Amino acid sequence: MRNIALIVSYDGTDYYGFQSQPGGHTVQDKLEEAIAKLAGERVPIMGSGRTDAGVHARCQVVNFTTSSSIPIERWAIALNTRLPGDIVVQSAYLVPGEFHARHHALSKTYRYTINCNRVPDLFRRRYEFHHPTPLDVEAMREGLAHLIGKHDFSTFTSPLSTKPNHVRTILRASLELESRPEADSLYSNPVYNREWDQRQYPGKSRGVIHLYVTGTGFLYNMVRIIAGTLIQVGEGKRPPENIADILAARDRALAGPTAVPHGLSLWEVVYEHLPSET
Amino acid sequence: MRNIALIVSYDGTDYYGFQSQPGGHTVQDKLEEAIAKLAGERVPIMGSGRTDAGVHARCQVVNFTTSSSIPIERWAIALNTRLPGDIVVQSAYLVPGEFHARHHALSKTYRYTINCNRVPDLFRRRYEFHHPTPLDVEAMREGLAHLIGKHDFSTFTSPLSTKPNHVRTILRASLELESRPEADSLYSNPVYNREWDQRQYPGKSRGVIHLYVTGTGFLYNMVRIIAGTLIQVGEGKRPPENIADILAARDRALAGPTAVPHGLSLWEVVYEHLPSET
Repeated sequence: MRNIALIVSYDGTDYYGFQSQPGGHTVQDKLEEAIAKLAGERVPIMGSGRTDAGVHARCQVVNFTTSSSIPIERWAIALNTRLPGDIVVQSAYLVPGEFHARHHALSKTYRYTINCNRVPDLFRRRYEFHHPTPLDVEAMREGLAHLIGKHDFSTFTSPLSTKPNHVRTILRASLELESRPEADSLYSNPVYNREWDQRQYPGKSRGVIHLYVTGTGFLYNMVRIIAGTLIQVGEGKRPPENIADILAARDRALAGPTAVPHGLSLWEVVYEHLPSET
Repeated sequence: MRNIALIVSYDGTDYYGFQSQPGGHTVQDKLEEAIAKLAGERVPIMGSGRTDAGVHARCQVVNFTTSSSIPIERWAIALNTRLPGDIVVQSAYLVPGEFHARHHALSKTYRYTINCNRVPDLFRRRYEFHHPTPLDVEAMREGLAHLIGKHDFSTFTSPLSTKPNHVRTILRASLELESRPEADSLYSNPVYNREWDQRQYPGKSRGVIHLYVTGTGFLYNMVRIIAGTLIQVGEGKRPPENIADILAARDRALAGPTAVPHGLSLWEVVYEHLPSET
């Protein structure tokens, strides 16, 4: 038996999440079906973690064992011809027998993208949340800094979380502002222009905000609740230091809404032995 | 009556092209429906040109006359709330009564995108044609150069063209090679790597090729047939100078296949008086 790891990207728009479920149209089901078609045997795959319905992955890592003798360098291309267009295997690796995509992940990074240009970016609309007014990115950065480190994240998880312990560690978190030249050049309305924005929304910026959060483990809806709460900070509805207060209170009711799933992507999973993909 | 011009982007994936047709799900129909909902009157719109089923537009320009007194700065946002997510109005302008989106267009630019990285770019798959082996970009550039200028483009139009005269002028045409750092970093297969490619496909490059063609007017399928023929040049199936020969022969049968529509976008339309959007 060989143990094979795959680096997989998917557009989660049309799936009920990563993890297999009864009657479910999930990414795991599609991968297992493609492996069965290729290798002639249905084997369960293990993902580095679940992603919810509508959430994407740039680099999800999965592994499975197989008795197939197909050479390892054939797997990625051969699976891609058997997968729907919204799931792509980037590469395949032979890994030691004990490798486990979930247990051996050292850290995972998620990215949540908020486009606060006036008009949505049509060609990326499936992968970013459009917030049509500018946000105070500096205040959001200040708020985000309170979450770095080891904390009880009960405030930032769904009440549906079944985990007994909500202590998790955020290793790194950052907000990057991407300016899209095209949005700038299209932003030439004689009335609602940059000057109008600055009068109307002082201290706030347009642009595309990428929130990156790296941790050893995440709770249910954690990044989306962090994003939804930081958006309120960016809107001026909460001061940045409020994030520290509500974190300490361990009460989901104090946080902001769960941001929509389509802005979220599983960005990277790091292992000691698997080559990093960025 | 006021004459209003709109700059419109759309994802053509799910439409039967721009132009209205009986029972058709077209971009024009959706725009006219949104204008009717907003202004209370159904008026015909005039586009700068048609785009075929599955073809996108970054900047399509349309105009229409209306008796509505809604202030011009409200139109873009108000229409966007009444349009499906795959059509976006970027901006609206009051234009002189005689302005006509088709007659007054000085030039139009189309872009055709060919991704010849090994694995498709999942998140742009709807907007680019995936060609899984590398292409000789220099040969394609050489071939393309033969098309610049005023020629009879009968070789590069569909036999379904109803135009009596196939003489058109290509003002500018270029091929730009985009390197995507992400594709590079994901491209770490121990067997099929850069060195393997260079042995297997000498003189050819991976990357994303954008073909830009600017002209005063285009024939039916013209850019797609140019793209399909240049791909054969890039594959080494035709020498670059063959483009000059087949152009002179005025025979569609001598050109390559019509490239798939989803790689094509109407990129820009230039007018004397409407602000350029790039």
